[in-house]
Amino acid sequence: MKRRIITLVAVFILASVVRSSLAGALEISENSQECIECHQEVTPGIVEDWKTSIHSKTSPVEALKKPELSRTISAAKVPDAMGNVVVGCAECHTANAKDHKDTFEHNGFQVHIVVTPKDCATCHPQEVSEYGKNIMSSAFGNLTGNPLYRDMMNSVNAIQDFHGGKLSYAKTVDSETEADSCLFCHGTQVEVKGIKARETEMGEMEFPVLSGWPNQGVGRINPDGTKGSCTSCHPRHSFSMAVARKPYTCAECHKGPDVPAYKVYMVSKHGNIYSSHAKEWNFEATPWVAGKDFTAPTCATCHASLVASESGDVIVKRTHQMNDRNAWRIFGLAYAHAHPKSPDTSIIKNKAGLPLPTELTGEPASSFLIDAGEQAARTAEMRKLCLACHSQAWVAGQFTRFENTIKTTNQMTLAATKVLLAAWNKGAAKGLAQKDSIFNEAIEKMWVEQWLFYANSTRFAAAMAGADYGVFANGRWYMSKNLQMMADWLDFKLDVKEKK
Amino acid sequence: MKRRIITLVAVFILASVVRSSLAGALEISENSQECIECHQEVTPGIVEDWKTSIHSKTSPVEALKKPELSRTISAAKVPDAMGNVVVGCAECHTANAKDHKDTFEHNGFQVHIVVTPKDCATCHPQEVSEYGKNIMSSAFGNLTGNPLYRDMMNSVNAIQDFHGGKLSYAKTVDSETEADSCLFCHGTQVEVKGIKARETEMGEMEFPVLSGWPNQGVGRINPDGTKGSCTSCHPRHSFSMAVARKPYTCAECHKGPDVPAYKVYMVSKHGNIYSSHAKEWNFEATPWVAGKDFTAPTCATCHASLVASESGDVIVKRTHQMNDRNAWRIFGLAYAHAHPKSPDTSIIKNKAGLPLPTELTGEPASSFLIDAGEQAARTAEMRKLCLACHSQAWVAGQFTRFENTIKTTNQMTLAATKVLLAAWNKGAAKGLAQKDSIFNEAIEKMWVEQWLFYANSTRFAAAMAGADYGVFANGRWYMSKNLQMMADWLDFKLDVKEKK
Amino acid sequence: MKRRIITLVAVFILASVVRSSLAGALEISENSQECIECHQEVTPGIVEDWKTSIHSKTSPVEALKKPELSRTISAAKVPDAMGNVVVGCAECHTANAKDHKDTFEHNGFQVHIVVTPKDCATCHPQEVSEYGKNIMSSAFGNLTGNPLYRDMMNSVNAIQDFHGGKLSYAKTVDSETEADSCLFCHGTQVEVKGIKARETEMGEMEFPVLSGWPNQGVGRINPDGTKGSCTSCHPRHSFSMAVARKPYTCAECHKGPDVPAYKVYMVSKHGNIYSSHAKEWNFEATPWVAGKDFTAPTCATCHASLVASESGDVIVKRTHQMNDRNAWRIFGLAYAHAHPKSPDTSIIKNKAGLPLPTELTGEPASSFLIDAGEQAARTAEMRKLCLACHSQAWVAGQFTRFENTIKTTNQMTLAATKVLLAAWNKGAAKGLAQKDSIFNEAIEKMWVEQWLFYANSTRFAAAMAGADYGVFANGRWYMSKNLQMMADWLDFKLDVKEKK
Repeated sequence: MKRRIITLVAVFILASVVRSSLAGALEISENSQECIECHQEVTPGIVEDWKTSIHSKTSPVEALKKPELSRTISAAKVPDAMGNVVVGCAECHTANAKDHKDTFEHNGFQVHIVVTPKDCATCHPQEVSEYGKNIMSSAFGNLTGNPLYRDMMNSVNAIQDFHGGKLSYAKTVDSETEADSCLFCHGTQVEVKGIKARETEMGEMEFPVLSGWPNQGVGRINPDGTKGSCTSCHPRHSFSMAVARKPYTCAECHKGPDVPAYKVYMVSKHGNIYSSHAKEWNFEATPWVAGKDFTAPTCATCHASLVASESGDVIVKRTHQMNDRNAWRIFGLAYAHAHPKSPDTSIIKNKAGLPLPTELTGEPASSFLIDAGEQAARTAEMRKLCLACHSQAWVAGQFTRFENTIKTTNQMTLAATKVLLAAWNKGAAKGLAQKDSIFNEAIEKMWVEQWLFYANSTRFAAAMAGADYGVFANGRWYMSKNLQMMADWLDFKLDVKEKK
Repeated sequence: MKRRIITLVAVFILASVVRSSLAGALEISENSQECIECHQEVTPGIVEDWKTSIHSKTSPVEALKKPELSRTISAAKVPDAMGNVVVGCAECHTANAKDHKDTFEHNGFQVHIVVTPKDCATCHPQEVSEYGKNIMSSAFGNLTGNPLYRDMMNSVNAIQDFHGGKLSYAKTVDSETEADSCLFCHGTQVEVKGIKARETEMGEMEFPVLSGWPNQGVGRINPDGTKGSCTSCHPRHSFSMAVARKPYTCAECHKGPDVPAYKVYMVSKHGNIYSSHAKEWNFEATPWVAGKDFTAPTCATCHASLVASESGDVIVKRTHQMNDRNAWRIFGLAYAHAHPKSPDTSIIKNKAGLPLPTELTGEPASSFLIDAGEQAARTAEMRKLCLACHSQAWVAGQFTRFENTIKTTNQMTLAATKVLLAAWNKGAAKGLAQKDSIFNEAIEKMWVEQWLFYANSTRFAAAMAGADYGVFANGRWYMSKNLQMMADWLDFKLDVKEKK
Repeated sequence: MKRRIITLVAVFILASVVRSSLAGALEISENSQECIECHQEVTPGIVEDWKTSIHSKTSPVEALKKPELSRTISAAKVPDAMGNVVVGCAECHTANAKDHKDTFEHNGFQVHIVVTPKDCATCHPQEVSEYGKNIMSSAFGNLTGNPLYRDMMNSVNAIQDFHGGKLSYAKTVDSETEADSCLFCHGTQVEVKGIKARETEMGEMEFPVLSGWPNQGVGRINPDGTKGSCTSCHPRHSFSMAVARKPYTCAECHKGPDVPAYKVYMVSKHGNIYSSHAKEWNFEATPWVAGKDFTAPTCATCHASLVASESGDVIVKRTHQMNDRNAWRIFGLAYAHAHPKSPDTSIIKNKAGLPLPTELTGEPASSFLIDAGEQAARTAEMRKLCLACHSQAWVAGQFTRFENTIKTTNQMTLAATKVLLAAWNKGAAKGLAQKDSIFNEAIEKMWVEQWLFYANSTRFAAAMAGADYGVFANGRWYMSKNLQMMADWLDFKLDVKEKK
């Protein structure tokens, strides 16, 4: 303990030096300085990480002086107390203290653990506002607030048992499993469950007990009531824009068989050029200049970044809505369809009364989806990017093929749905009419794979020219084979049933 | 529009400066200069990409002055008009204008869109000639001109429907689906379907309408009648040799379950060393010096590149035939076999009259395949590379194991074929005797996976020492399990059939 | 031949220059010098690779002078003859000559081919001793010496045949297949099978003939009787620590569906930060400073490396035992369980007399496994690393979730086991009671996938926060679906059986 105190004194002195030198003429606020003095010792990795961030090297006032296109701060002005210091620990972890149910007294400060979009909005209000229109910000409620998706989630996570020749699912799923499974990406609900004292190197201290923690899911429900987690894409304390521009960030949630976006990208020509050349690219530049800073798009280029030409013309604007260049939602549920109007998809009801964006037979629930005009406008916006490096004919051909693949994959989903309906009608499985889960039997799970894995993969491959993900790598080959397996399963099951 | 004109004037002035400075003493031809003046504005990404290429920085005459081993141009001489200018837009896009059905009048030039191997042969005749012997150059015809493979292609791509308890396949497949699926890698047939006027920033202009466009498949049928697309591996306007030497290029088409070459490489010791060290390697050097420029081979090292030792001895010569160090075709159809003699495999017929390189029971259609002597010569050539870093005993052991695995995987394909034949004989499925497709039923698709996915994966793993791709990752585990599933399917199906 | 001799003379002169210059003041031993003179010509890649190693640039005596935390040599002293020369060919390939059955006379030297942990222990005794406690060092015997695992191995590798409507497995498996399959990673048994003369560039020479060669498996049985292969992770002649610290090394054996550690890591936040930033990290530094040399852990960080804070405090010690921070063995056999006490798991017997660490129903064979106290100690050690960058609450939440997932995945394995037991009891398959292999029928293979693929993947995802590998990418989705497929298979099989 004595050694620890001596170390802390040394750190204090060192930190004072760091304070004046780290950020050049810029100052670390006194509050943040106090945080660093201990945490440099207690969680050194966090402090080191922060030192690599732009937050540690500039102040909001300095950031506001940059030319508009180079500026990554969107507030017109920031609170006086923050303006001339770098953005340190206290600036974020003590902001909006009263709104945070996770605020606790910590060495004289009102600190909260979970920094939220509202906290970030102090300097980045436009990004936070746009993100609110991003379907990802509603990822928690869109999954758990939709009875059908909720049921699918349970069918994945519930423990099963086998008794008397029959399988059964547990009625409930523990929250740890949900947080480790679907909600890992969708976001958990982080709530304060109490206060607990713990012995620390500084003596006993009290800390809030949080449910659903840790989590960095895109639709996290935060203790201040906000939705989302900026650290999903701008990870940890470097808050890096460069990391968010690289495809590895998106891969955290978009690599599996349900959304193989990263895998498709990586076998595309764009992905090849990225892998071959990215180490020579500039991922820090704002605006991001096509052809100069990068020679092939990443996920961010097409869906989020401010991209300009070398002559300074804006090709596309920055957006954290991310779907405003997407005419279609190609992630089938169960069919691909025009993009939903609202980020909150739990409000959708089709004609059959199901909370789905299409009927079971594929017709869109149009009143909840953007119309053809908006679709055309979004595609036109996306095409601007393509045209920086490709001819009109090239781009037109690409989009024709993509939209054709949306149509044909929906047809293959329809064929699978017809087999499923036959299974329900003939009593080989129990479905909607029997008020049974539509996700708990083998044929139902095969049906889900038809759209969730194979049709999705084929569409992502078409969208990004990712070859085999539309053929043998979970593409058309599997759509075709799965149908045969479904039909045979139905034959086998009916045969067993008839005999009994 | 006025702003656009001002910009274009500025670009013109800028381009004039670029013209004299970009390539040092080297000039951009007047024709290419004219292209750049507009396209720097219209498709800036293309111009920027070209600027990074060696084409923009040297002239054919300069290239011819290099020592033979360092030279990447194979023509003895080039047309006078091209010799002393850098290789710009016009040099390629106006070459051989009369041969190109896609040639059109464009601002006074006879421009064609699709640059072909014949155009590249102006400076690189040897590479183009060798590529003609590469089985990849015939990838379009080898697939679509072989009735069996064509049928398999249709079974993958055709829309299916389910009526009266039975699945059916659509009789035809739309060309957009084919271009988005198999032909994406194999190459489409690019044909001129007319001329269409379009409003552009420069006023109304006419452009040819192309079918099968865009496409960069290795066996593309071009509007000048040639086969192949150099940009498959030397992408876009940087025409990079470095990119072609990196494994990401091959991964575009060789990563899926049918040809998991990239995946296997990446878990091999070679792949590990590549991933760990490639950023320190020199991918631009010619010749490519083993141990100095790179410390583990990539795909290109073994199959294409000119490799030398530090003392200047040639270890292996450059080849765009790529199969001249391959004794075997390990991509089973349905069995692995000695490499075909001709790149055009659609000419092959086995004794049973099927267009296959082996009988259904595995015996090779020998007259179409290279003989044991040629096989030995090719293996000897490959071994030269191995021996630069490995002992004789090491290399001998590796090849013994590899050839043993070819034998055993063929045996496991034979076992699956016997199950399939039993299914046909007993009426559980319809096959050759019933003049039915051999790819449209579940058991047939399981049979295909036995050789196309599992035996192939196991062989690639053996070829490159890629561990788990020969065991649990689509390897022997799946060969073994798939057989059991096939036999059980047959039992179940016969049971259903007997009852009916 | 004459040219070759001239070259060799030139090489001799060159090598003399290299000798005095390569390693600064440090000398290459005369013996190693002789090796290099020929092998620079015969296997230039090896010599080049060695030149990049630290072995070529320092001597044991120099290495011993380093401060303790920076030292990568663990011997207190080394034999005099080796102390002041760099570690070259002869230092390793002639060490302990009498212990090596593969020692042979080679140009006057007693050379052996297979360098073993015992040879490395001359300078690195602590690492070798620790590695002996690593379960990986016993990987050969743990697989081949356990009758159940041996049987599973055969069921994967044996050729199958189909006759009279029935599948059969070959009784034996050839050694080439085993070496190309399971033993590729587990390690082969390398034995001297004779001596053979071969014509070389230097005239006829004799070399030992080795079985099981080449191989670099982690549990290789060496000709000197030792177990393991340091080159598994410190590849080839660069013996790089940097390579071992990168995840690609572990990926060689830990990427497949049975142990998807690499894949899980790559979609984790840690993996994202690695992929985005590793090119700026220092992989050569000893000790490895968290936050400074790297900003997210790799496999080595958590399982092997000496990690310190910037202030010089040791966070965790270096270990080649690698499991001393692992409380659990999450690689299910068939259930996850407390880590085995001994690296030799072939000694384990459960109450039912099976060589398994748990009963078939999941209860641990506790006497062979570490107790709760040791588990807590190992977890506490691992947590030290987490806490360098994460708060106590974060880390506690992570471990709670991880241990919950161990429990729930074991429950899902139990459900699958119940289906399997029902299949055996009802005669749908033959199992233990029938003294039949428990790995040779479809339902048994489905059961294996339940724990080997899906439960394992889910646990690795929980351990490293790898999202979809616990859900759709071989995770809970597949555990759930596989159970339904198993139960249906049982129904179908019983139906067929009853009829017969």
